[in-house]
Amino acid sequence: MIDLDIQNQQDDRNIDVDKVGVKDIRYPITVLDKQTKTQQTVAVINMYVNLPRNYKGTHMSRLVEILNEHDRRISIHNFSDILSTMKERLNAESAHIEISFPYFIMKTSPVSHSKGLMEYQCTFKGSLNKGKDLVVVINVPINTLCPCSKEISSFSAHNQRGEVRLQVRFKKFIWIEDLIKLVEGSASSDVYSVLKREDEKYVTEKAYQNPKFVEDIVRDIASKLERDPNITWFAVESENFESIHNHNAYAYIEKHKAKRYNRR
Amino acid sequence: MIDLDIQNQQDDRNIDVDKVGVKDIRYPITVLDKQTKTQQTVAVINMYVNLPRNYKGTHMSRLVEILNEHDRRISIHNFSDILSTMKERLNAESAHIEISFPYFIMKTSPVSHSKGLMEYQCTFKGSLNKGKDLVVVINVPINTLCPCSKEISSFSAHNQRGEVRLQVRFKKFIWIEDLIKLVEGSASSDVYSVLKREDEKYVTEKAYQNPKFVEDIVRDIASKLERDPNITWFAVESENFESIHNHNAYAYIEKHKAKRYNRR
Amino acid sequence: MIDLDIQNQQDDRNIDVDKVGVKDIRYPITVLDKQTKTQQTVAVINMYVNLPRNYKGTHMSRLVEILNEHDRRISIHNFSDILSTMKERLNAESAHIEISFPYFIMKTSPVSHSKGLMEYQCTFKGSLNKGKDLVVVINVPINTLCPCSKEISSFSAHNQRGEVRLQVRFKKFIWIEDLIKLVEGSASSDVYSVLKREDEKYVTEKAYQNPKFVEDIVRDIASKLERDPNITWFAVESENFESIHNHNAYAYIEKHKAKRYNRR
Amino acid sequence: MIDLDIQNQQDDRNIDVDKVGVKDIRYPITVLDKQTKTQQTVAVINMYVNLPRNYKGTHMSRLVEILNEHDRRISIHNFSDILSTMKERLNAESAHIEISFPYFIMKTSPVSHSKGLMEYQCTFKGSLNKGKDLVVVINVPINTLCPCSKEISSFSAHNQRGEVRLQVRFKKFIWIEDLIKLVEGSASSDVYSVLKREDEKYVTEKAYQNPKFVEDIVRDIASKLERDPNITWFAVESENFESIHNHNAYAYIEKHKAKRYNRR
Repeated sequence: MIDLDIQNQQDDRNIDVDKVGVKDIRYPITVLDKQTKTQQTVAVINMYVNLPRNYKGTHMSRLVEILNEHDRRISIHNFSDILSTMKERLNAESAHIEISFPYFIMKTSPVSHSKGLMEYQCTFKGSLNKGKDLVVVINVPINTLCPCSKEISSFSAHNQRGEVRLQVRFKKFIWIEDLIKLVEGSASSDVYSVLKREDEKYVTEKAYQNPKFVEDIVRDIASKLERDPNITWFAVESENFESIHNHNAYAYIEKHKAKRYNRR
Repeated sequence: MIDLDIQNQQDDRNIDVDKVGVKDIRYPITVLDKQTKTQQTVAVINMYVNLPRNYKGTHMSRLVEILNEHDRRISIHNFSDILSTMKERLNAESAHIEISFPYFIMKTSPVSHSKGLMEYQCTFKGSLNKGKDLVVVINVPINTLCPCSKEISSFSAHNQRGEVRLQVRFKKFIWIEDLIKLVEGSASSDVYSVLKREDEKYVTEKAYQNPKFVEDIVRDIASKLERDPNITWFAVESENFESIHNHNAYAYIEKHKAKRYNRR
Repeated sequence: MIDLDIQNQQDDRNIDVDKVGVKDIRYPITVLDKQTKTQQTVAVINMYVNLPRNYKGTHMSRLVEILNEHDRRISIHNFSDILSTMKERLNAESAHIEISFPYFIMKTSPVSHSKGLMEYQCTFKGSLNKGKDLVVVINVPINTLCPCSKEISSFSAHNQRGEVRLQVRFKKFIWIEDLIKLVEGSASSDVYSVLKREDEKYVTEKAYQNPKFVEDIVRDIASKLERDPNITWFAVESENFESIHNHNAYAYIEKHKAKRYNRR
Repeated sequence: MIDLDIQNQQDDRNIDVDKVGVKDIRYPITVLDKQTKTQQTVAVINMYVNLPRNYKGTHMSRLVEILNEHDRRISIHNFSDILSTMKERLNAESAHIEISFPYFIMKTSPVSHSKGLMEYQCTFKGSLNKGKDLVVVINVPINTLCPCSKEISSFSAHNQRGEVRLQVRFKKFIWIEDLIKLVEGSASSDVYSVLKREDEKYVTEKAYQNPKFVEDIVRDIASKLERDPNITWFAVESENFESIHNHNAYAYIEKHKAKRYNRR
């Protein structure tokens, strides 16, 4: 008799598969929102489990079924339930889920107080092994004005849109909004959805008075995160879409366990 | 005295700008849903107006303000209101808006009747000039099995994921769901979010009994649309991510006004 | 007896296919270079023919064979030979080819005369029907500085990287280099691969003295192309990656046959 | 007196920057080719150095200058020279370079022996710290046929294009060609640029006789690499663009130092 459940057949190559699963599933989700309690958005989702050496294949359709059971109600609240269900339903020792989505915040312009929705790309990366691990990733568009260009020029300075990508691990719950504010406060200026004339004047002048290299951006953010006892790990990247070059400027700082900042 | 409203200054180059505006705005929207009345999703939005030769610039922030006034309530219902507001508020003769978004449909597998959410990328392209114009675009993933491979091989046939991109103009309101069904019914097999073993058997065998070239896909869809008096124009593309090549196979049919199909 | 050449079988749906062929083939090519005679680069290539209503399928492998016969020697010189071969070998009435590639130019910085390679994305789109048609497309990165921001601010002005996409039809052979120079001369400043301190000062100050809306960029380019009798058609788009917004500013002008510029 | 060399100014935040430099430079390069000695292609290049805590900024233009000094002659041979130059010219303790490019191989079809160019996306990632590190990455498109679909269906089986991404560290020089052959030999079938009818029959039947889960692909590759004493580390991913789903199947194995394969 043939065992038609091929996935459960014995595998004799004797090799564990670290991750196996489904990738690039687009899915509507609900996430917590500091201003409006919840917000509905659309995610791209990856779900993986490990596969011990003695099994031939995993049952991928079960991963999609778990997603569908949580139809449109996936949030940070039941994130770790989903990971537990994945481990259990797939008989796995480890489970991984990655959820990337645009997150929207109503932002007020600095002078006219005009309101407009800003979008920030976010990712939650969770793993459940013996212990749990969660990394929150946010991408924040910013304005950066070059200190060197300002110093050497008789007037003006080149500036451009940049993007900061911040990854953090933390002890207690943390709002996406607060991470975004921390990043935006480290830029030459933050960027906006709607700016009226008086706002544009303010933003232009603020950036000029606040020049920053890509190195400054990551250092200022690292410096703030270092002082926050709730942040147990971080990695921060900054990329400038240089307005006078056709390539980008880039800087990266990661908090290594072994690395010490002697600051007083 | 200097006129600080630079956009309203006179322009002496004597050249009309066909389209000017804002591009790549990510925005949460609500769209009509045949099953659940409405669904919330996230769009990428472009908004343009024309600019007559005697004006130096358009007031782009007004376009974003119009979007924010319709906060999260943008739908096909107020699409033409938005276009009218754009024309009026920008003093323009023509207004254009393009809204692209993932659309989700709960789909039932063919044998086990398992449910899972399928995602289809859609775009509405609207223009308001003297008249109105609306084009609906849907992207539908499909399975295609090669007739030639089936014919020449002693067993099996190469098959692959393909994607159909259908654009239509129409007289009366049309459901996205009905366009998708029409496309999926023209494939070797449609694709699913969740398939159990009995479904996978069904889908595999159905595709083998229903081989289609990329040319067949576009012809079968064109043939159905031709017979529908509600469809006034269409363009249909099919692209196969060939499983035996590292390039794609592609076919395209557009309904030209002058083109006649002599069918009996 | 079964006809195994399925593609040549009769088709009874009575529908012409406008374009059918192969898409997204990456291929090394040689293009003409004004400075160095030829340059080797890598293209993404699409090749299509029409398919009359009475044939079931086209012979796609022949398209790839034609490409391979011209192995690494594809250039603008034999572009129309390739189109003729496509028509002939596939028994088609029309043939289309699209070739997109990065093109490199050694560019000298404005003050220190430092040299560095700049990259420009180009596309050749050719069709052979009863007549021939060729469209050359170039993408040129530029710097744009906002006139409004300059006017209203006590100092500085927001500026950013922008991209111009220019499409042209022409009578006599035209150098990519000359089109690029025309576009770069219409920006607030062009961008560079290498800039030393004295160059950065020059570029920063030049941009400030030369503010341009996205509308100005397309109008200035359109105005120059209008005066060039060799250019029979053009479409020009400009997109600014706004440094104070998280969306882009966009403008578009197309030379319509019916459109007249009354310039004296 | 003001020190205009801002980058060399003292920084008092006391934070090292792990990586700082230039990103997304498109550049023509020459790479070694097993068949034709060298081949010219086009790369996307990132170049980073570290920045000690006491310096305010790095001199990015020097990185681009180093690239331009090696104009179009960058290859694996002078890879480590470039890294040394970067360290020296930027006064850095570590240097990193990432070079991604399409690599072309003339491939012969299995029965008719038709020749056609296949393209494989490759990356070299090099670091120079106290020691040297080099990782070679190749992306190989493959055909995979589902063992489960074959088993449960009365005829045929769903198959699709997949992509393997293999990263390796090694002791002695290794040809890209040999890594590609190893990957292609682990698929249900490899894919081709040109296939005639007799080739298509062969490839279709071979895939059916050689069904593989995404888990099988990574295990078969891992198993071969384990047995090669020249390979000191690897990570292998396989992703199937499932032909019956609109999401992908994915598997990943990394050779961990601590991980032991008890194979006899």
